[in-house]
Amino acid sequence: MKDCIFCKIIANEIPSEKLYEDKRMIIIRDISPKAAVHLLAIPKKHYADFSLLDAEAKAELGEIFFAIAQNAQRLGYGDGYRLIINKGLNGGQTVFHLHIHILGGQVLPFEKL
Amino acid sequence: MKDCIFCKIIANEIPSEKLYEDKRMIIIRDISPKAAVHLLAIPKKHYADFSLLDAEAKAELGEIFFAIAQNAQRLGYGDGYRLIINKGLNGGQTVFHLHIHILGGQVLPFEKL
Repeated sequence: MKDCIFCKIIANEIPSEKLYEDKRMIIIRDISPKAAVHLLAIPKKHYADFSLLDAEAKAELGEIFFAIAQNAQRLGYGDGYRLIINKGLNGGQTVFHLHIHILGGQVLPFEKL
Repeated sequence: MKDCIFCKIIANEIPSEKLYEDKRMIIIRDISPKAAVHLLAIPKKHYADFSLLDAEAKAELGEIFFAIAQNAQRLGYGDGYRLIINKGLNGGQTVFHLHIHILGGQVLPFEKL
């Protein structure tokens, strides 16, 4: 998708350290970390947000979550982690290419918003 | 699973208002809400936590996420929402039966933890 920063990262048009990559997704560091470890799992296919999942995306999402779990130790969130999907402006979404926040590397409080 | 509160809710051994139910999951209200709308999507099959997903669970998870998106308007989080999976004690998990927090009904801040 033209003008999508995540699409450009996926296409290597913007340089980025890919901590993990497979045919479906990449994992990179969040540039504004909100925890000791804060990574982003980004599907390669462009979905503007979570509500736009189609049948193909449903299957893909399961595989993406599985890869997140499988790589926990190697990527530094093996002691416990939080996965977050923000949908829409009210949900705190800032980049409109579906992505999953991975937070870990510390004890994560879960307080009232 | 014996002594699992979510398994008991699913089996109607503990009464609970099921806002949504299909063959794979239920959606109920969180009893300690952290946002204006705070629901829990709970797979009917018992997985102690997110890291224990197997092949069957991968497919199921995609369907569960799809149903969460499809029911957003009806369940009051249609204006934007946040989905959270806490994995392990450090991740803030308190009930060891995999579940997805659905937060919405307000503008959700996304601050440093």
